[in-house]
Amino acid sequence: MYTLIEARSLIEKHIQTFSIPDTPSQLYEPVRYILSLGGKRIRPALVLLACDMFAGAVEPALMPALALEVFHNFTLLHDDIMDHSELRRGHPTVHIKYNENVAILSGDVMSILANRLMNQSPGVVLHTVQDIFTRTAMQVCEGQQYDMNFEEHLMVTEEEYLNMIELKTAVLIAASLKIGAILGGASEKDADDLYDFGRNMGIAFQLQDDLLDTYGDTEVIGKRCGTDILDNKKTFLMIKTLEKASPEEKEKLTNWLTRKEFDPLEKIQAVTDIFDKLYIKELTNVRIKDYYKAALESLEHLDRPPEKKTELFNFASYLMNRQK
Amino acid sequence: MYTLIEARSLIEKHIQTFSIPDTPSQLYEPVRYILSLGGKRIRPALVLLACDMFAGAVEPALMPALALEVFHNFTLLHDDIMDHSELRRGHPTVHIKYNENVAILSGDVMSILANRLMNQSPGVVLHTVQDIFTRTAMQVCEGQQYDMNFEEHLMVTEEEYLNMIELKTAVLIAASLKIGAILGGASEKDADDLYDFGRNMGIAFQLQDDLLDTYGDTEVIGKRCGTDILDNKKTFLMIKTLEKASPEEKEKLTNWLTRKEFDPLEKIQAVTDIFDKLYIKELTNVRIKDYYKAALESLEHLDRPPEKKTELFNFASYLMNRQK
Repeated sequence: MYTLIEARSLIEKHIQTFSIPDTPSQLYEPVRYILSLGGKRIRPALVLLACDMFAGAVEPALMPALALEVFHNFTLLHDDIMDHSELRRGHPTVHIKYNENVAILSGDVMSILANRLMNQSPGVVLHTVQDIFTRTAMQVCEGQQYDMNFEEHLMVTEEEYLNMIELKTAVLIAASLKIGAILGGASEKDADDLYDFGRNMGIAFQLQDDLLDTYGDTEVIGKRCGTDILDNKKTFLMIKTLEKASPEEKEKLTNWLTRKEFDPLEKIQAVTDIFDKLYIKELTNVRIKDYYKAALESLEHLDRPPEKKTELFNFASYLMNRQK
Repeated sequence: MYTLIEARSLIEKHIQTFSIPDTPSQLYEPVRYILSLGGKRIRPALVLLACDMFAGAVEPALMPALALEVFHNFTLLHDDIMDHSELRRGHPTVHIKYNENVAILSGDVMSILANRLMNQSPGVVLHTVQDIFTRTAMQVCEGQQYDMNFEEHLMVTEEEYLNMIELKTAVLIAASLKIGAILGGASEKDADDLYDFGRNMGIAFQLQDDLLDTYGDTEVIGKRCGTDILDNKKTFLMIKTLEKASPEEKEKLTNWLTRKEFDPLEKIQAVTDIFDKLYIKELTNVRIKDYYKAALESLEHLDRPPEKKTELFNFASYLMNRQK
């Protein structure tokens, strides 16, 4: 059995050494750059652990695992352009370090590279794996579109928001587990149980990301806190606040959301004060635990011996206790 | 045997009706929009004709053919952002009609959609077809990168230029034929002969595009003539002009290439006058015919009965006589 640490270190080794062309350097250097910035390598590690759970080996899943990581980084690269983000993991984003055209095109080539890596899946499951991967990839784009749409709406319902984060974040984590399971020879039912585990974990993970963007430690997360507030992102925090706010608080909040000119730090502080007054941090933590619990139930329900599940339980616990 | 006209009309029918999700509409409406703008459907028609040549049927190639057309339109969509183009086939480009974020994201989803369509290739050739497709797709990105690099260089050699158009345009046409052949059960050698036919046709096709951008009829080609000149594109015309120009003509040209403020029509006229003086139009036409001839030789060399080749000969002749 691979441990979580072993799986991540295997990914880290291969993500730095797998074959990426050299020329034109303007195209491929940004690809190496974003892949070198680290990150938690959650998705590829999940592919390996899920495969190992059924096959007792991770090798058939290695290239598909890299595919998921390359795809995920492609989405980050393009999302950063669309969201005008300047920092990613404490480093300049690709469109800032290079330029926007380079960011568009090197993202495009990463998406193709991901497919090329996925195409190294064993022939017997290639069609199935590509089917899950491409459907999921489309959903991730849909999630990003809803996310951008929400910036222009004053009101977003909790249901709309949860659907958005499911598409934007959770399905890729879920698909990583399902693809890994299928590569390991799992039955469809078992692969689907792992998908549900991943989907719930993914939603919990994103709610936690929302929380960390406002309440995380800037030094630890590697980017400024409060960027979601500055971008008028309708996060879970903001949606629950708009739902629970008194008319007076709502007016104050709406004012901040529509104001064109403001001091950034003042806006972050004012909005966070309203969050605090309504116990939004605590309320969000409760919801995170609900999804976490649902995830653990799917994992318990999975028809595998307990010792085969240890690493995924560890992973879930690691994700829930992260500070960034 | 499918005729060229039948192949194109089959593509036209399916490109308007194949399954694209409806929501979020902001994401998928631009996909439908760009696919509805028409175009010559060259690549998918080549997939069908190549498949038919070996299988006597086009059905196994239909979804992969759509994949090539969707992929091609994805590259146009993103290239238009990068090149700041405002018109595509006489209509506003996606980033002008909608906005740049929409154009980035709907392009991304088209690239994935192309993969999803390609994944509907028969299992026995799926890995091979995806291998050719993804390698080619990466080369297309490389070609676009070189093309953008050239805008910032004053001198580009003929060799660099021909390499660029081979990557940006010719390999996708070549791969369409090779993929079609493999879907039809062709041997590797026959598929490679068709690839060479497509590669030479593709280069001829792009040289002709260069010529039409300066010398085509605005009404016929659906965009303003001279956009390459305005964008300082190092086309075959410009490269040969810089190579053949007298010191005086070269200085005049360099002046136009580096000037930041100018009247667009005046620049187009002045540069075209230099082209004319050096017989660049005629010289380019000679080179187009050379590549066309090389293409026809590959097709003659192909080990298939002459009647199986008729439609590809027709296609080549149609491409060479096009006015847009």
